[in-house]
Amino acid sequence: MNNQKVGILGGGQLGRMMVEAASRLNLSVTILDAPTDAPAKQIESTQAHIHGAFKDATKIRELAENVDVLTVEIEHVDAHVLSEIEAEGKVKVHPSAKTVKTIQDKYFQKQHLTSHGVPVSEYLDTPNEVAVLAAGKQFGYPFMLKSKTMAYDGKGNYVVKTEADVKPAMEALKNLPLYAEKWAPFVKELAVMVVRRANGEVRAYPMVETIHKNSICHLVIAPAQVDGAILSKAQEIAMDAIKTFPGAGIFGVEMFLMQDGSILLNEIAPRPHNSGHYTIEACDTSQFENHMRAILDMPLGSTAMKVPASIMVNILGSSTDMVECYKPCHEALVTDGATIHLYGKKECRAGRKMGHITVVGESMMQAQERLKPILKAMEPDVERHLSLRPLVGIIMGSDSDLPVMKVGAKILKDFGIPFELSIVSAHRTPMRMVEYAQSAAKRGLKTIIAGAGGAAHLPGMVAAMTSLPVIGVPVKGSSLDGVDSLHSIVQMPRGVPVATVAINNSTNAALLAIRMLGAFIPGVLEKMDAYMKRMENEVLGKVERLDSVGWEEY
Amino acid sequence: MNNQKVGILGGGQLGRMMVEAASRLNLSVTILDAPTDAPAKQIESTQAHIHGAFKDATKIRELAENVDVLTVEIEHVDAHVLSEIEAEGKVKVHPSAKTVKTIQDKYFQKQHLTSHGVPVSEYLDTPNEVAVLAAGKQFGYPFMLKSKTMAYDGKGNYVVKTEADVKPAMEALKNLPLYAEKWAPFVKELAVMVVRRANGEVRAYPMVETIHKNSICHLVIAPAQVDGAILSKAQEIAMDAIKTFPGAGIFGVEMFLMQDGSILLNEIAPRPHNSGHYTIEACDTSQFENHMRAILDMPLGSTAMKVPASIMVNILGSSTDMVECYKPCHEALVTDGATIHLYGKKECRAGRKMGHITVVGESMMQAQERLKPILKAMEPDVERHLSLRPLVGIIMGSDSDLPVMKVGAKILKDFGIPFELSIVSAHRTPMRMVEYAQSAAKRGLKTIIAGAGGAAHLPGMVAAMTSLPVIGVPVKGSSLDGVDSLHSIVQMPRGVPVATVAINNSTNAALLAIRMLGAFIPGVLEKMDAYMKRMENEVLGKVERLDSVGWEEY
Repeated sequence: MNNQKVGILGGGQLGRMMVEAASRLNLSVTILDAPTDAPAKQIESTQAHIHGAFKDATKIRELAENVDVLTVEIEHVDAHVLSEIEAEGKVKVHPSAKTVKTIQDKYFQKQHLTSHGVPVSEYLDTPNEVAVLAAGKQFGYPFMLKSKTMAYDGKGNYVVKTEADVKPAMEALKNLPLYAEKWAPFVKELAVMVVRRANGEVRAYPMVETIHKNSICHLVIAPAQVDGAILSKAQEIAMDAIKTFPGAGIFGVEMFLMQDGSILLNEIAPRPHNSGHYTIEACDTSQFENHMRAILDMPLGSTAMKVPASIMVNILGSSTDMVECYKPCHEALVTDGATIHLYGKKECRAGRKMGHITVVGESMMQAQERLKPILKAMEPDVERHLSLRPLVGIIMGSDSDLPVMKVGAKILKDFGIPFELSIVSAHRTPMRMVEYAQSAAKRGLKTIIAGAGGAAHLPGMVAAMTSLPVIGVPVKGSSLDGVDSLHSIVQMPRGVPVATVAINNSTNAALLAIRMLGAFIPGVLEKMDAYMKRMENEVLGKVERLDSVGWEEY
Repeated sequence: MNNQKVGILGGGQLGRMMVEAASRLNLSVTILDAPTDAPAKQIESTQAHIHGAFKDATKIRELAENVDVLTVEIEHVDAHVLSEIEAEGKVKVHPSAKTVKTIQDKYFQKQHLTSHGVPVSEYLDTPNEVAVLAAGKQFGYPFMLKSKTMAYDGKGNYVVKTEADVKPAMEALKNLPLYAEKWAPFVKELAVMVVRRANGEVRAYPMVETIHKNSICHLVIAPAQVDGAILSKAQEIAMDAIKTFPGAGIFGVEMFLMQDGSILLNEIAPRPHNSGHYTIEACDTSQFENHMRAILDMPLGSTAMKVPASIMVNILGSSTDMVECYKPCHEALVTDGATIHLYGKKECRAGRKMGHITVVGESMMQAQERLKPILKAMEPDVERHLSLRPLVGIIMGSDSDLPVMKVGAKILKDFGIPFELSIVSAHRTPMRMVEYAQSAAKRGLKTIIAGAGGAAHLPGMVAAMTSLPVIGVPVKGSSLDGVDSLHSIVQMPRGVPVATVAINNSTNAALLAIRMLGAFIPGVLEKMDAYMKRMENEVLGKVERLDSVGWEEY
């Protein structure tokens, strides 16, 4: 397929998963890392790996002698020698040494991003205490004091809550080059993997939601359960940011979603990233394969999700006890849709990433249900409430329709279907209706239930502006017994259908929406089967009572 | 996770993919095979593999010394020594040596299956020419003459077309132990992977359709595009068959689907199988991981598909030319949803399995579209027409409704949606209606369009017996202008919804069905968007014409 030899600086789990992807394409990979049985070396026996530090210039040179392309699984490498090798021109370096250098230093990274118009939270250089105090004045408290270099998984960060914290913060981070960052009161943390080919082509994976625990990535939820319009904007920002970095490869982009829907870029990793592990099971092409393709200038693979939902959870050591650490895996073994990835690490310690588990699901509801017992095994005392993006939208022309429509809402709630409910009037808020209909599919809705009375234009007008199925509920008004609404909703012209149900029957509208979901989500279909069975039994119960009590007493 | 050491007899691609699965679970695997760089050895550097033949008793013994569990990636091993090792009891053998021995000999295998009531095509022992001629008399021509042992990928098989073929057949298969098999005029070849845990628990993967080329597996289509009721029956037969074989592991079961819907079991492989490679990308747990779990007595993983559709195609050598062989891979690199698996084989030759490509899709329509350019690169002169199971069912109470309903059928055809169309009368064929409604979801339908006039009971009655969404088309009769049908269809009681469209408007019924599919199949949603855009442009064209021609001339 491709005869260029690849050398990777670093042989941890990221290198290991790169090797896995490379093997499937018959690509040759050599690893530089200190342990002789580093995770990445364990699964590649055809190459003579190099045993030494990935910061050691001599060893990097030795690796470069044996390969055509150098890449990294960690950014804390000797970027200087990478620059030299790149300049000599015999071996390609991806991403470019310049990119690694810029990203290594978080302060430079921020400067670089700001200079390209990428939104980041405010920051200040703080070479000394006076500067740190000045930052407190400018940003207010709390703010973040961060090491510019060698910071990861919360290490090298300090939350300065009051002026009195300044001294202890500087003591904790002493001898490190520091800068201050304004506090970002985000509502969610988002992340996205972006892959860039040497020719500049850039592709983004879906936006995901990340949940950290003790500043270490804990959960990754794909796709993020956030309004699709916001996700598209965030994806654009990430792609624009990555376009500014020379060289090829995959990049992890971490972002903050703020209360007002705006996005701040937090930081970038110039390599495969923990927030992209879910891509192995959940996407057309994994982040690792796309990294290999990018650095070898091969066509990039599709970044689309191939399953509806996925959640990744890290397996972290809690102590040196390996057995304790792997406990959640035993839960994962009996969980449908869960895949375990262990990294072959020989020793366990608190906070060490020993593996991860990816759960996939036919729906985000199912993925969350599947995750529960695994999380329970991991953190028995924590109750996590993960959010769900609505699948069904219920709208009505007026709040006077609510008594009719809430019956359907109740059904959706009973079935555990995430939905939204609002007032959208065709005649009184026409522009809101246009906006609602046109954004519905993008926001993640699968169907819309629209209730309306009288002239009852809402369902048909919404159907004219979305390609999703629209269910119309004719609401009975004060005259004409609802027949006016019924005919207005059902007699749509050829080309724009509305799925019409009986007058005032929002129950059936909800059940129809659930059947539509059930056609593609087997778990929902099963619930509908059970509902119909219960309905049958209820009537059979009445038959029995009628038989035993007799018709006169009934 | 599990400290038992596994030894595999054979280090080809099946062993390689087992090792891949094992690595992710931190399982230790040692390989026995002749080449020092056998595919499976290439991706496992932590063990001292054994270099020698997997038929060599001494080498098998050497492997057994170093492991806790022995398994095979090929059934043509020395089963005798496996029996001995199993009897000694120090090392477990999975599947049991007895199973390997029974399956190795296709004639014994048939006898075994027959004795357990598994349906197979008729067969006869043919130790000599007289017996072969007698088989011809009994079965008629053509029939198959087969070697009992060492037969795979069509090798060791001969189609005896006439009595005159008997001599050349016996010459071609000379020195082999032969038996004859009655010709099975199948309509499709089906296959299924079944995994069996040591405790007897058995799980089946989805049924797939296999297409062979020169007697070698060419395409594997998952799920098989066949009536779901038939697939369930075939799956049951396969599970029943596997329950009769002692020991644990995964089994590939090949079957014939006959014209009358009956199933014959063709043959069984006691190991991972080419027809199960799709499980890596398309199922919750791959066949390889489930094999490892089974032989280590770990809980079996879910065998469900996690994507709607998948097609696997083998990459076979056509000569010694490696570049030629990998050509289709370059097409796969630019195909969304395609994953390439190369096996690291150092030499190419005609018919050698060098790798495979798995394509996944949001629908079987999409998977087939994605496969096309890859197949084109592989076999430029072949036009393959793969079948599609219907997603939409159109039914009507009477053929008099056909003129109305065919307009909707035309729309589905234009959108490229596979559908079926039939007459199902609620009043004249009530039992057919019950059968149709109750089997619909299982057969693969996602929605049903039912047209009816007058009393118009069909849509509502079908909706009462399926949990799929049902779309009702009120057909206008000779009196009451269709309002009778409309009210009869739309005014369903709480609990059972029918999505009602305008009178006679099967166009909208079809468009509604397409919208329902589109909510979950992005490619279909895009087509609906395009349709709506075209509709808009058509009207805008009329606006223009009206403006330019004037209303009097229009």
